[in-house]
Amino acid sequence: MRIGILGSGVVGQALARGLSRHGHEVRIGTRKDAVEGFSIGSAEDVVGSADLVFLSVLGTAAVEVAAGVRKELRNKILIDTTNPLDFSSGRPGLFVGHTDSLGEQVQRAVPEAQVVKAYNTVGNTLMVDPDLPGGPPSMFLGGDADEAKGGVTALLQATGWDVVDLGGIEVSRYLEPMCMAWVLHGARSASWDHAFKLLRR
Amino acid sequence: MRIGILGSGVVGQALARGLSRHGHEVRIGTRKDAVEGFSIGSAEDVVGSADLVFLSVLGTAAVEVAAGVRKELRNKILIDTTNPLDFSSGRPGLFVGHTDSLGEQVQRAVPEAQVVKAYNTVGNTLMVDPDLPGGPPSMFLGGDADEAKGGVTALLQATGWDVVDLGGIEVSRYLEPMCMAWVLHGARSASWDHAFKLLRR
Repeated sequence: MRIGILGSGVVGQALARGLSRHGHEVRIGTRKDAVEGFSIGSAEDVVGSADLVFLSVLGTAAVEVAAGVRKELRNKILIDTTNPLDFSSGRPGLFVGHTDSLGEQVQRAVPEAQVVKAYNTVGNTLMVDPDLPGGPPSMFLGGDADEAKGGVTALLQATGWDVVDLGGIEVSRYLEPMCMAWVLHGARSASWDHAFKLLRR
Repeated sequence: MRIGILGSGVVGQALARGLSRHGHEVRIGTRKDAVEGFSIGSAEDVVGSADLVFLSVLGTAAVEVAAGVRKELRNKILIDTTNPLDFSSGRPGLFVGHTDSLGEQVQRAVPEAQVVKAYNTVGNTLMVDPDLPGGPPSMFLGGDADEAKGGVTALLQATGWDVVDLGGIEVSRYLEPMCMAWVLHGARSASWDHAFKLLRR
């Protein structure tokens, strides 16, 4: 697949590296002149030519960046990996939740795109081919378009994940807080190689 | 230990049955005249004589029930297993979240008690001695008193759980939404024998 990644930070780079390893043609959409080791382009160009797009910017920029390529995202799958992390109070929190979520805000910003919330409950080092004792871990996801979720599920399963589909994009209200559980364990244990798994019979 | 359980529904009964099996002396605090198969008493009496108390009522009643035994709970550990579930809109949601939580509301209602949020991210059938492939599952907890969390951790570890302490009682903001992920998977799969595990190296 041709995969476009919006965001050139550690998450975008980890996804680009991991998905390239699986044979996908990956480009990062960025305003930067270069991102060492990666193929880049403008957000519009990268999204326009992609089969699948990841939104992997800071939570505070997610809606604006998605809205900026609304036209190019029409009828495309947008995987929203972002979290509404808020460190302004001194301890980590979320800037939206409970009755709304960043996933829903992103979907509202690009109504013609098929937004799938996924990849937000794990850190960048484990996003592709997670190798953990007791694995594979479970990626929880949600989105309004079943076909889009099917595509994301196939990608996840091909890259080392068990997949748990929880419903529509509004489940972002529950997945984004799960990110905080992931973050808090990392901060307390000073280790970041952990992931959730849903045990079931 | 002498364990008191506030709530005579399926959760309270499952906890009472499971913890009795481990040799604990368990009583259910209730206004009912009898709960078949269980030793009961008034909430005041049960809490007053308990070493450890579970709050296992409906989320909508949690604060009121806890406040009603504030005096008896002084200096005791209260395990808050409740979730702010709200079914009034037709689809399940939470009636508090993001910037507050039911766990924090309960702690504010009984400030002299040591509230530990736990047991809220799994269903009643798995609360004691969960037997799942790939287990033990992980119980996520939070509370302001380290000593209280130590006691709850010991109980959990003795009854089949891995334990992940995420911090103070405010982590209820993240644990209560995780309950929704548990609920949504159950509703979609029509099976309720599942639990989270935190995989780590």
